[in-house]
Amino acid sequence: MWRYLLLSMFLFVNVNTHYLYKTKWFEVPLDHFGLGRKETFKIKYLENEDYWNKNEYGPIFFYTGNEGQIEAFANYTGFMWEIAAEYQAKIVFAEHRYYGESKPFGNKSLEKEYIGYLTSAQALADYADLINYLQNNEIKPRYPVIAFGGSYGGMLAAYIRIKYPHLVAGSIAASAPIHMFPGMTKCDLFNRIVTASFKRNLYCSENIQKSWHLIRSYSSSVNGSEYLHKTLNLCGASNATDINSLIEYLESAYVTLAMVNYPFASSFLTPLPAQPVAVVCQYLNQNLANESLLEGIAKVIDVYANYGKKTKQCVDYKEGDNYQNLDAGGWDFQACTEMVMPVCSTGQNDMFEASPWNFTKFSEDCYKKYNVYPRENMARLEYGGDLLQAASNIVFSYGLLDPWTAGGFISSVSDSVDVILIADAAHHLDLMPSSPDDQSPVKDAREKHKQHISKWIDSFRARNKHVVT
Amino acid sequence: MWRYLLLSMFLFVNVNTHYLYKTKWFEVPLDHFGLGRKETFKIKYLENEDYWNKNEYGPIFFYTGNEGQIEAFANYTGFMWEIAAEYQAKIVFAEHRYYGESKPFGNKSLEKEYIGYLTSAQALADYADLINYLQNNEIKPRYPVIAFGGSYGGMLAAYIRIKYPHLVAGSIAASAPIHMFPGMTKCDLFNRIVTASFKRNLYCSENIQKSWHLIRSYSSSVNGSEYLHKTLNLCGASNATDINSLIEYLESAYVTLAMVNYPFASSFLTPLPAQPVAVVCQYLNQNLANESLLEGIAKVIDVYANYGKKTKQCVDYKEGDNYQNLDAGGWDFQACTEMVMPVCSTGQNDMFEASPWNFTKFSEDCYKKYNVYPRENMARLEYGGDLLQAASNIVFSYGLLDPWTAGGFISSVSDSVDVILIADAAHHLDLMPSSPDDQSPVKDAREKHKQHISKWIDSFRARNKHVVT
Repeated sequence: MWRYLLLSMFLFVNVNTHYLYKTKWFEVPLDHFGLGRKETFKIKYLENEDYWNKNEYGPIFFYTGNEGQIEAFANYTGFMWEIAAEYQAKIVFAEHRYYGESKPFGNKSLEKEYIGYLTSAQALADYADLINYLQNNEIKPRYPVIAFGGSYGGMLAAYIRIKYPHLVAGSIAASAPIHMFPGMTKCDLFNRIVTASFKRNLYCSENIQKSWHLIRSYSSSVNGSEYLHKTLNLCGASNATDINSLIEYLESAYVTLAMVNYPFASSFLTPLPAQPVAVVCQYLNQNLANESLLEGIAKVIDVYANYGKKTKQCVDYKEGDNYQNLDAGGWDFQACTEMVMPVCSTGQNDMFEASPWNFTKFSEDCYKKYNVYPRENMARLEYGGDLLQAASNIVFSYGLLDPWTAGGFISSVSDSVDVILIADAAHHLDLMPSSPDDQSPVKDAREKHKQHISKWIDSFRARNKHVVT
Repeated sequence: MWRYLLLSMFLFVNVNTHYLYKTKWFEVPLDHFGLGRKETFKIKYLENEDYWNKNEYGPIFFYTGNEGQIEAFANYTGFMWEIAAEYQAKIVFAEHRYYGESKPFGNKSLEKEYIGYLTSAQALADYADLINYLQNNEIKPRYPVIAFGGSYGGMLAAYIRIKYPHLVAGSIAASAPIHMFPGMTKCDLFNRIVTASFKRNLYCSENIQKSWHLIRSYSSSVNGSEYLHKTLNLCGASNATDINSLIEYLESAYVTLAMVNYPFASSFLTPLPAQPVAVVCQYLNQNLANESLLEGIAKVIDVYANYGKKTKQCVDYKEGDNYQNLDAGGWDFQACTEMVMPVCSTGQNDMFEASPWNFTKFSEDCYKKYNVYPRENMARLEYGGDLLQAASNIVFSYGLLDPWTAGGFISSVSDSVDVILIADAAHHLDLMPSSPDDQSPVKDAREKHKQHISKWIDSFRARNKHVVT
């Protein structure tokens, strides 16, 4: 179930907004930490200087791109755009190597022979180089740089401040599961948080929990399978139900609904209404069984698969998560190497079928795919997990509805590493464009972000008076 | 003149002391930051547990090995051994990859095709892995780790605290030229400090300054060349004086004398008496010219080349610095890639011939040798130069007689990054075995080191109470 992280990365909503930027390219070495490979390639970055007060050394707001095309992040990280004018800031969104168009070996980049330089450390070093370039290669930088990121991008925003504090004055790290590596958190916590969102609606999680056995049992007979196909509106022949794919599809749907449980309508892979968990749970709001339970599940799936579509389509459950258009194929490799994040379910404390975390199997699967075994300690050793006593000027924000808060770092260690827990907020809601439907917790979080940003900028300026005056 | 850095690394004195350790090996990946290369190899480390109170979580004193065989550092970093009992500490000396016996590709390691993984970042990651292993791979480490290092090893001690503060509680970084990268310091400062040591002795630097022209002019005639050979006791035929090698040999001798200007006799490449600069300057203590000046220089060189030797030998000036036995061949590559440290002389403010820093030539020479161009910003971007506002728990110590203080970081930025300037001290004297000849400045510095170490250990323990009790 580790594959959910990938899924988490593209919960982009409010596609209505359109921000303007120039697309630029920046040359980086393939290997920042060795000199055996001499190749260089270009990463993409998006730039807007409309609000920038360059003469008075206005700040640079720098988004540390996630695993995907950077345009998606530029278009949906409304918070940066909305505060840029107030701070007279330049805006930069940097694309992560091996994603989008920032591929060192073009179309071959994700093949076994070429994918090895896809690591977070190399990506951070790309960003460090780019920031240095944006500072005109000056040894005493003039512009305060604030890093922003959500989810994996939030991890990178935190990590760049941890590893390159001379380049970044402070970081807003939203929904960053920095504490999700092996041995750090209980693997079932993720699915318990998913379950909690459904539990808030009477009978909803209980009905889902009961449904697994029912679905499996229907799928095992010819008549049952036919009934399932018809009721759930599944694509494909009713005599060839792939029950494991179906179960996986449903699990994935519930996880996604919990993660994008926003107060406004969203347009993720399939468009979803505001408060999607409450919306789907209305079909499961009494103690259901047998055919009435399956009919309820069918309505849930119909919302997930068909909301907002003009023509209803059959549920293509075998397709799985089709994110090809987001070009996020590299994440599977990252999850198989350094970003090992155990997720499991017990069937006891969550509404899913029991599914233990099996590192051996995970590891062997990775070896088959990429000819590498996971380096399960790599990220912890490199970034420290939650041992952040020496870190400074980072805000970690977590939404209490967000399953990824399972890997959250939820006790602040110093005055300058702050943790903001946002009630009623799903996955990095605080970075998204503001909405009339936003409630006070997320509004307060954004205000706190601004207070931190102002403080970091002031302190950078106080420290660099001799440079900027 | 950048080659002096290499030279600086092996100023080991007081060879009388012999410390006991076990030699161990630890497997590391060739590439910590990428997964394209699957090779692993073993680095050597030396371990002593005689003083370690493991049960009560005694600290680990961890020396971040320089460019050379680690035994040399273990044998001459007396400070760690002398305080280990008081702290009930375990002692570890880790050998830097590509030096000594820690070669990833055996004898071929320094060849162009294999040398690319010789970088400080990879070495630090080796040490991080080793520290994790010494902590039994525990997510909440139990033993406070204190890093120690001198010269390049001092840079690594500082850098490991900067980059891996979750693994290292604090660092003693002695004579670490972290501010010696391009654009950070004036390139002639190094040789001005060398000159200052000689200037403390009447007429000494002035005579040396005058000698260059005289030596060149003698070397340009047959008779003069013969006189030079005889007087200076040079090896080789007198009709084939390699004047540039001779000048370089003399410069290098003066630099070395300044660096090892210790209060006790030392046994560096060639053994030297206590206070070697004062000793040699007694032969130049009046205004000399012509043959009397050359005779004075001859006596200086005789001390440098023959002190303590039973049989006087001719001065093998063409051999240059012969450090083969220290196995430090990799440094030349490091200086050509990330450790670019400009050194020059003006002939005005120093006692040397004018020799400008020529990066273009330097760069082309590197390309010829290694097929790589220097990445002149690499170390600055990775480690921040002197922008250490976010760093903590580091002591930088610098001897005021040490030319490498030219690259010193000499203003402390916070309560927890301290700078200790040690009067009358040459290159990382504070880490060396104590001597009856030690003066109060170095004794005070060692006391301060201990105060810092105690504070770091206490603070680690306070923070980890839930772990260690």
